[in-house]
Amino acid sequence: MPDASILDVFPAPAGDPVVIEHTAEEFTSLCPKTGHPDFGVVTLRYRPRPAGEGGVCVELKSLKLYYQSFRDEGIFYEAVTRRICDDLTAAVSPAWLQVITDWRGRGGIRSRIRAQTGEIPPEYRGP
Amino acid sequence: MPDASILDVFPAPAGDPVVIEHTAEEFTSLCPKTGHPDFGVVTLRYRPRPAGEGGVCVELKSLKLYYQSFRDEGIFYEAVTRRICDDLTAAVSPAWLQVITDWRGRGGIRSRIRAQTGEIPPEYRGP
Amino acid sequence: MPDASILDVFPAPAGDPVVIEHTAEEFTSLCPKTGHPDFGVVTLRYRPRPAGEGGVCVELKSLKLYYQSFRDEGIFYEAVTRRICDDLTAAVSPAWLQVITDWRGRGGIRSRIRAQTGEIPPEYRGP
Amino acid sequence: MPDASILDVFPAPAGDPVVIEHTAEEFTSLCPKTGHPDFGVVTLRYRPRPAGEGGVCVELKSLKLYYQSFRDEGIFYEAVTRRICDDLTAAVSPAWLQVITDWRGRGGIRSRIRAQTGEIPPEYRGP
Amino acid sequence: MPDASILDVFPAPAGDPVVIEHTAEEFTSLCPKTGHPDFGVVTLRYRPRPAGEGGVCVELKSLKLYYQSFRDEGIFYEAVTRRICDDLTAAVSPAWLQVITDWRGRGGIRSRIRAQTGEIPPEYRGP
Amino acid sequence: MPDASILDVFPAPAGDPVVIEHTAEEFTSLCPKTGHPDFGVVTLRYRPRPAGEGGVCVELKSLKLYYQSFRDEGIFYEAVTRRICDDLTAAVSPAWLQVITDWRGRGGIRSRIRAQTGEIPPEYRGP
Amino acid sequence: MPDASILDVFPAPAGDPVVIEHTAEEFTSLCPKTGHPDFGVVTLRYRPRPAGEGGVCVELKSLKLYYQSFRDEGIFYEAVTRRICDDLTAAVSPAWLQVITDWRGRGGIRSRIRAQTGEIPPEYRGP
Amino acid sequence: MPDASILDVFPAPAGDPVVIEHTAEEFTSLCPKTGHPDFGVVTLRYRPRPAGEGGVCVELKSLKLYYQSFRDEGIFYEAVTRRICDDLTAAVSPAWLQVITDWRGRGGIRSRIRAQTGEIPPEYRGP
Amino acid sequence: MPDASILDVFPAPAGDPVVIEHTAEEFTSLCPKTGHPDFGVVTLRYRPRPAGEGGVCVELKSLKLYYQSFRDEGIFYEAVTRRICDDLTAAVSPAWLQVITDWRGRGGIRSRIRAQTGEIPPEYRGP
Amino acid sequence: MPDASILDVFPAPAGDPVVIEHTAEEFTSLCPKTGHPDFGVVTLRYRPRPAGEGGVCVELKSLKLYYQSFRDEGIFYEAVTRRICDDLTAAVSPAWLQVITDWRGRGGIRSRIRAQTGEIPPEYRGP
Repeated sequence: MPDASILDVFPAPAGDPVVIEHTAEEFTSLCPKTGHPDFGVVTLRYRPRPAGEGGVCVELKSLKLYYQSFRDEGIFYEAVTRRICDDLTAAVSPAWLQVITDWRGRGGIRSRIRAQTGEIPPEYRGP
Repeated sequence: MPDASILDVFPAPAGDPVVIEHTAEEFTSLCPKTGHPDFGVVTLRYRPRPAGEGGVCVELKSLKLYYQSFRDEGIFYEAVTRRICDDLTAAVSPAWLQVITDWRGRGGIRSRIRAQTGEIPPEYRGP
Repeated sequence: MPDASILDVFPAPAGDPVVIEHTAEEFTSLCPKTGHPDFGVVTLRYRPRPAGEGGVCVELKSLKLYYQSFRDEGIFYEAVTRRICDDLTAAVSPAWLQVITDWRGRGGIRSRIRAQTGEIPPEYRGP
Repeated sequence: MPDASILDVFPAPAGDPVVIEHTAEEFTSLCPKTGHPDFGVVTLRYRPRPAGEGGVCVELKSLKLYYQSFRDEGIFYEAVTRRICDDLTAAVSPAWLQVITDWRGRGGIRSRIRAQTGEIPPEYRGP
Repeated sequence: MPDASILDVFPAPAGDPVVIEHTAEEFTSLCPKTGHPDFGVVTLRYRPRPAGEGGVCVELKSLKLYYQSFRDEGIFYEAVTRRICDDLTAAVSPAWLQVITDWRGRGGIRSRIRAQTGEIPPEYRGP
Repeated sequence: MPDASILDVFPAPAGDPVVIEHTAEEFTSLCPKTGHPDFGVVTLRYRPRPAGEGGVCVELKSLKLYYQSFRDEGIFYEAVTRRICDDLTAAVSPAWLQVITDWRGRGGIRSRIRAQTGEIPPEYRGP
Repeated sequence: MPDASILDVFPAPAGDPVVIEHTAEEFTSLCPKTGHPDFGVVTLRYRPRPAGEGGVCVELKSLKLYYQSFRDEGIFYEAVTRRICDDLTAAVSPAWLQVITDWRGRGGIRSRIRAQTGEIPPEYRGP
Repeated sequence: MPDASILDVFPAPAGDPVVIEHTAEEFTSLCPKTGHPDFGVVTLRYRPRPAGEGGVCVELKSLKLYYQSFRDEGIFYEAVTRRICDDLTAAVSPAWLQVITDWRGRGGIRSRIRAQTGEIPPEYRGP
Repeated sequence: MPDASILDVFPAPAGDPVVIEHTAEEFTSLCPKTGHPDFGVVTLRYRPRPAGEGGVCVELKSLKLYYQSFRDEGIFYEAVTRRICDDLTAAVSPAWLQVITDWRGRGGIRSRIRAQTGEIPPEYRGP
Repeated sequence: MPDASILDVFPAPAGDPVVIEHTAEEFTSLCPKTGHPDFGVVTLRYRPRPAGEGGVCVELKSLKLYYQSFRDEGIFYEAVTRRICDDLTAAVSPAWLQVITDWRGRGGIRSRIRAQTGEIPPEYRGP
């Protein structure tokens, strides 16, 4: 089951904060209604707070294990996107953070869901 | 014939509202002048009102059945785009909502029509 | 020879006006200097005035015939773009209207020309 | 050697000025340090002044010959971009004008250089 | 080991400053935790100060050698991006400067990191 | 319901027989189990018998109408492919004929079915 | 755990046997050494025996469920490919059958494995 | 009207004969039934006879003018392909010659027609 | 330095031998003349001998480490391709084996080298 | 002027001969009729004779300089292809050798020319 305690962090590099984007192309969870597997791509984008203010970055291997913890979870597209956004926000307390999920369609319909924390700069908003 | 009563909804997830996009690649209706089939791609994008204000999301399978109800309908590109926009707006009362249809050309001309409800954020507008 | 009287219109759908885009991939005219044929793609994009104010849309088949009427016309890239823009503006009196032509190169140079009527919203401007 | 006197112009079409873009995919000059040939794509984009104010457009064949006049010139990426921009500005006195050059890499690095004259509208700026 | 002293510069061309972009598709360093090689694409984008104010451009061959000096360096994605940004800023004192690194994924996750110096114009920001 | 009597033919051109391929990108029928629409691309490839032996070609508009006659038919992928192959073979008595159908997946699986009449030359066989 | 008894079949259509291809883009199993998930695309291609000889086709929904039964199985690329090939061969007793699996890389290496039953026609062999 | 007398030739180069391919992306003729323009891509491929046996190549500019002579001709896909093949064969008396035409669809169907003279080597046959 | 002793193997699966392909997209070695890094993609394709005759497969992680052992080696394109082919042949004694290397160009020229062991089936040969 | 004496060679690697392919994407010569520059891509493919029989490979930098020596040469597509083939054959005395040139079109027609020495294996022949 999804486990945010897996998430590990390390201090952000000194100097003007970078913007970080990690795209996981192999996310899978289960449809809560049918039990069939869903497959998606999860993009995480955020700006850590400055190093001098205790800013941290998420460690890449822990992020992968966190994503894997959804493998047996029955959860809707909208909810899983919101949850990843909330868990990562709790883990890194970023200046801002954004989660975009892309799902290969069911019944000929493919979907993209966006969730966010804080004020996303215009250049990182949709579509 | 098109039947908006098919549309089903569920409560939006708690927290900051997500932006939701569903792209149906297999839409077909009929040309009202010639009776020949039209084939298009329908993109629906919206932000539900917050969960605390009764915000809802459209259920994916009901959306698929709603789109299928246009299969025998003779209707112009512009009208079908406007109608889907109006029917979905009635069903989910969103903060904002957008419908974009893309049509494989007739006579060497392909078309895209956009309709909307409410104030679309700049990053989700055209082209 | 180009004949704007071919253009036919129908009333815009009721409600918030849609944005309409028609892309003709098979446009051909003649180079006025050499007489050799030019081949281009013509994109027309416009927002009709509201239905309640007499807003109209261009009928697709008449648009196709109008474009075909340039087949034997010797005319420069810049002039044909301007003329299509002016003729369509006269035909539909839109809120705004935009014509973009893309030409397969001559002498290793390909070209794109843009003409417009009214105030184009930022999201529909270049490049 | 580069020869701006080759550039020929013709009057801009009447009415609201168009935006014109010519992309030459077969530009070659020489590296001033090694003498080896450089190969690039040159994009020219500009808005002529209105026809009523004496606005002119660059003639396409003369533009091609002007580009060919760089074939034996040893000149840096940055300088050739600046020079084309200055020569064309002198030839057409545009409302604004932009030159973008794209160079197939040397040593595994490819480059893009942008130069401009006047105030470029936001929609035609980078990246 | 990374060596910024390799970086060589030359005077910016006279006139309105150009915007310069160099994309190195063959960057490699080492993961500081596992010692395994990382492979990335490094995009550098900057506007030199005007020639009249002593503005300079980075010389392309020296840039290549500078990038090669990371080949045996164990360094995180975030840190290498920040360091290249800082080293180049020191070398060319630009009006603004931006470094974007794209990394082929590890564990099914690919990453993009952005660092910057000065005020980046909106058209050169993300995503 | 599917109606092969719609198919019209015209005499093959004189001389060495041509090979003819028509690709219909907008085919739709119904799943016989669920009633849901299926969407596919149908490729027809054949060599008519020589004109001197009474060889004929299928007329394009009649082919389109024939395909449209499947719109309300519940029929499996394998059966519709076989049937189109048999109906066309009956209509044009070709030297050889081939039908390939490509179906956008159901349940994350997409399919291609091939049927044929006569001896297909090696260069026109799979995959 | 993988369960071939899920596989269901139906009689092949009468007439010259078709060639059938099903591509499942969402296959996942586990690495037997690390327990980490593997993600692949599985292509099944076969020719059923003629209907008159008892030839059968695999039913699509049962194929999907069969693939899903590998979700918790620790199994090597080579073994899973061999096993799917053997299970399907047992289920449909085809004239010939081929399984191709494509795996998103681990450690920067992506893989393709091919297994087969019977004599594959040349046009359906690699690469 | 189509005029094969436009076609000009020059002697094939000495030595082992080359294989020559010219692809014209801007061919247009008229539909003989509706009078509407057709747009296609014409690929010509041939091997001239050896220079020592009087082998010749078609001159490129004359080929272009020959293709342009179809601009006002009402002619079916199959017939125009056969005619170009016959005219070119008469003009260059090649060892073998092949014409492939690709047509942007009408009514959602796109077409490819192949005609040939002599024995085409296997590697230049379909699909 | 390149070290074939790193290569590890495991028994081929029982039954008809599979064909195995591993594509490493991140190979780097050094140019023996200039010392500059080369970057390439290495594709390994082979058929193991049958399991009953002692056939083995190369273990994926050991293959990755073997490739990494070329990182500091100065070696020509042709020689590294030949060497990888020879080392893998020694390690797995395959029925046949093929190595294809693709190199991002130097001086505007990109290269592909092919080496092989045993009789490669036609469908796995070039280009 | 073209100068085959620039071509340098080195001994082929020991063992079963490799197949070598070099693709030069930046070739330019002049049209002998108009003097305008032509731009093409030149692909060279060959198998050297075995090392034990004195087989040699062409050195990459000398190949680049040899190609550059055509920069000011007025020469037809067919002739330049034949000449490169003959010059390289003289330089490396290969088992077989093939030259393919691809030319960005003139007058809307692009061209590919193939020349060869010796018996080209089927898998390396057209189209």
